[in-house]
Amino acid sequence: MSKTNAGRFFEDYTVGEVIEHAVPRTLSGGERAMYHALYPARHAFYSSDEFARDCGLHEAPLDDLIAFHTVFGKTVPDISLNAVANLGYAEGRFLKPVHMGDTISSRSEVIGVKQNSNGKTGVVWVRTTGSNHLGEDVLSYVRWVMVRKGNVDAPAPETVVPDLAGSVAASDLVVPEGLNFEGYNFAQAGEPHRLSDYKVGEKIDHVDGVTIEEAEHMLATRMWQNTAKVHFDATARDGGRLIYGGHVISLARALSFNGLANAQIIVGLNSGAHANPCGAGDTIKAWSEVLDVAETDAPGIGAIRLRLVAQKAEAEPFSLKGDDGKYLPGVLLDLDYWALMPV
Amino acid sequence: MSKTNAGRFFEDYTVGEVIEHAVPRTLSGGERAMYHALYPARHAFYSSDEFARDCGLHEAPLDDLIAFHTVFGKTVPDISLNAVANLGYAEGRFLKPVHMGDTISSRSEVIGVKQNSNGKTGVVWVRTTGSNHLGEDVLSYVRWVMVRKGNVDAPAPETVVPDLAGSVAASDLVVPEGLNFEGYNFAQAGEPHRLSDYKVGEKIDHVDGVTIEEAEHMLATRMWQNTAKVHFDATARDGGRLIYGGHVISLARALSFNGLANAQIIVGLNSGAHANPCGAGDTIKAWSEVLDVAETDAPGIGAIRLRLVAQKAEAEPFSLKGDDGKYLPGVLLDLDYWALMPV
Amino acid sequence: MSKTNAGRFFEDYTVGEVIEHAVPRTLSGGERAMYHALYPARHAFYSSDEFARDCGLHEAPLDDLIAFHTVFGKTVPDISLNAVANLGYAEGRFLKPVHMGDTISSRSEVIGVKQNSNGKTGVVWVRTTGSNHLGEDVLSYVRWVMVRKGNVDAPAPETVVPDLAGSVAASDLVVPEGLNFEGYNFAQAGEPHRLSDYKVGEKIDHVDGVTIEEAEHMLATRMWQNTAKVHFDATARDGGRLIYGGHVISLARALSFNGLANAQIIVGLNSGAHANPCGAGDTIKAWSEVLDVAETDAPGIGAIRLRLVAQKAEAEPFSLKGDDGKYLPGVLLDLDYWALMPV
Repeated sequence: MSKTNAGRFFEDYTVGEVIEHAVPRTLSGGERAMYHALYPARHAFYSSDEFARDCGLHEAPLDDLIAFHTVFGKTVPDISLNAVANLGYAEGRFLKPVHMGDTISSRSEVIGVKQNSNGKTGVVWVRTTGSNHLGEDVLSYVRWVMVRKGNVDAPAPETVVPDLAGSVAASDLVVPEGLNFEGYNFAQAGEPHRLSDYKVGEKIDHVDGVTIEEAEHMLATRMWQNTAKVHFDATARDGGRLIYGGHVISLARALSFNGLANAQIIVGLNSGAHANPCGAGDTIKAWSEVLDVAETDAPGIGAIRLRLVAQKAEAEPFSLKGDDGKYLPGVLLDLDYWALMPV
Repeated sequence: MSKTNAGRFFEDYTVGEVIEHAVPRTLSGGERAMYHALYPARHAFYSSDEFARDCGLHEAPLDDLIAFHTVFGKTVPDISLNAVANLGYAEGRFLKPVHMGDTISSRSEVIGVKQNSNGKTGVVWVRTTGSNHLGEDVLSYVRWVMVRKGNVDAPAPETVVPDLAGSVAASDLVVPEGLNFEGYNFAQAGEPHRLSDYKVGEKIDHVDGVTIEEAEHMLATRMWQNTAKVHFDATARDGGRLIYGGHVISLARALSFNGLANAQIIVGLNSGAHANPCGAGDTIKAWSEVLDVAETDAPGIGAIRLRLVAQKAEAEPFSLKGDDGKYLPGVLLDLDYWALMPV
Repeated sequence: MSKTNAGRFFEDYTVGEVIEHAVPRTLSGGERAMYHALYPARHAFYSSDEFARDCGLHEAPLDDLIAFHTVFGKTVPDISLNAVANLGYAEGRFLKPVHMGDTISSRSEVIGVKQNSNGKTGVVWVRTTGSNHLGEDVLSYVRWVMVRKGNVDAPAPETVVPDLAGSVAASDLVVPEGLNFEGYNFAQAGEPHRLSDYKVGEKIDHVDGVTIEEAEHMLATRMWQNTAKVHFDATARDGGRLIYGGHVISLARALSFNGLANAQIIVGLNSGAHANPCGAGDTIKAWSEVLDVAETDAPGIGAIRLRLVAQKAEAEPFSLKGDDGKYLPGVLLDLDYWALMPV
């Protein structure tokens, strides 16, 4: 028997199974520094221990997306090594900040399977949960991927398609314990705009662009211990290395500081689509649309629901979909998330 | 009103105004590691906690230039987003070492404005001060930039040109509290040369060269949260990305270890010019000239004033200016600074 | 006299001399994060403080190869600045884990010299030892290099060729104090295979490939404060920058996780050859061969002796040597080491 991991195929997933992913990971100030070197991240809550203290925490947590990438990376060997495509995200909730010194583990429950009509692939839905060394859950989200069958003759499983919420209800968002925006320092945060300054339907062009290099996306993807071959091996795929979709998420989120500096803390991930592949040499720009606003019970804290779109620099501003309902070729990411913002 | 930062234009600066720059930043061992990965930095005082302890400090501080870049980066959104050119530095003094765990903020006072005769641009002088979370100033320097006018019809302000010292007087240099070079370990530091071994006028070719990659200068510049678009967006400028001048400063300073290993601690920045633009693919070499030497009151500690020149590998050794007084095309940086050295 | 380090030449080495290498280095979580960003490293013992605690240590040490590269890097200015080739390693033993906060120094004893018949070069053998700030040795290994003569007229020294062991005896391997694999968590480690599952002579193709970028190998090599010019200066050598052999070692070791996830801890380095030069753009794959297995006195802990070969992606699987006994052109590294594994 081969000792190496060939990854799972479609027929290897059974609804109800819980997969404990390997290789827990302890995070430190090193990951924080690397995150700031890899992305133009400037949200003050994650940049400054003092700012986080003024908001009621004992120090700045690690960026929410460090938590996301770390949890996600652990799932790759079990979920997406043979994935044809990463189809979507839903019901993502950030449950607890991740701090330097925390050790993060991931587990996934298979919650749906559906063989495709071609008989060669199928869709697998998993609910992935990340937890820290104290056993506290820090993040939970649903993700579905299209996976090849290893044996095309394997019988099709009974179709189970999970009933997923179109978005996380504002009342289900978890505000970090002790968080308080009543003394929020807008000058330090970098912009004066509070929740009431944003209108549903408002669109913001985040202006700045970043041209991606091979070394950068590989450093990032490796740091999350994501092992998907297509990101690293230029000989594995026509057209060269494919950039990890999460790299584009982090780039776009960081670029969105310019106009959304006070959308400090990601608390919900409603949906997400990697609309087109991204490769080194692409220059990424981003725009956002305000989809909703909501109150929370926490002092001075509201929630803003945002569409975050990453596109290539050469695409028209505010590109999204064509008349056929399909993403335009210059669109890379269409993400729908909730963030906490001072009211 | 747009929610994004368009940056300030020349007419937006008023002499006497103090700008508190946004997004304080907490530094850790991560930034120390990244600095050593980005630059061939080997000065022992910043490499080894034990060496720093033997010199009277409780641990190795972060490299002086980490402090400089962090403070500088915060000023970019307010000072140089619309800058045409970074014209010079003066009166730079390093006031207190920056340690892991420190949170750094920056503020700048506008100390001069002068509209150019073309009516389209002007020069702005600012004195920028970085401070830590205890409110202690860690660094102060004057910088002047040429900035575009947003409205060419805006009236020219009254010209104020600050009276700047040609160099920081040796008596104004601040030796870190408790620093003592009496038991200085030359073997661990890497070279036997003490202050008395250097003669004013002596020139040193630092020998080694480093070829710069796009990924490296972007990682560095982003780590300092410097947002100037020309460093990141290959589509923003003919000729591609322009390398942050500070990246060249750090490269040249690190290369100068070879011959100046005992010029341990930068304490003064007398002047600096980014003589020509630098881009990826350039191979950087460096040379230094001893401009002055001075005593301090601190035990075993003297000061050396150095010209540090970065040039392209293909330039003649010891290149600087042509007969016309202008920098030769292969010269990238002409920096004048004070460092502490064992006497 | 020039103040810069021209490096030593063959005639500058005398058997018995001990060279204390300069610039001690304090390591932190930053180096741990960078290591994970640079290499697809996933061995759980170095990834998770919790996993290391369950194995009896107080936290995860830094990867063994961080210790190796740090110790090695310090030797470059004194040993290999004028080296023509890095010829081999022997008798390497890892004596104590290196932890965050440790300050590492290196010293080398010259144990052999042999002038080549061409009269222009010679071979120098050194035994290098790394130690921490408590004065405890953490690593020791023999390395030999071919070095140019500075003065071809210098007389040939008396030939001394050290008598080196072909491999480290299993009984000489040092198991870290307190290490215990009796409660070893195979699920967290990522693979179920224990020592008894591996047979001498078994070969494992580690499957995955990584294409190397210039920025990555330079970041790595600089982080270890390795100053060898050929790694950094594209103008210094026909064919461009030569990748530090240690970068290939770390890449191959990290790739070997896939099939050898439980070969957790490197404790011996029996021999090693950098078979062919490696440059940016090369895609690296790796395979291993089980050379030996052994018991230790420590609870639940055995040792596995492995040949680790790095090769270019385009080479035949399991490439090594041709009929002439020479390494095939696609082979980059042939390393022979001992690792600890649960029995």
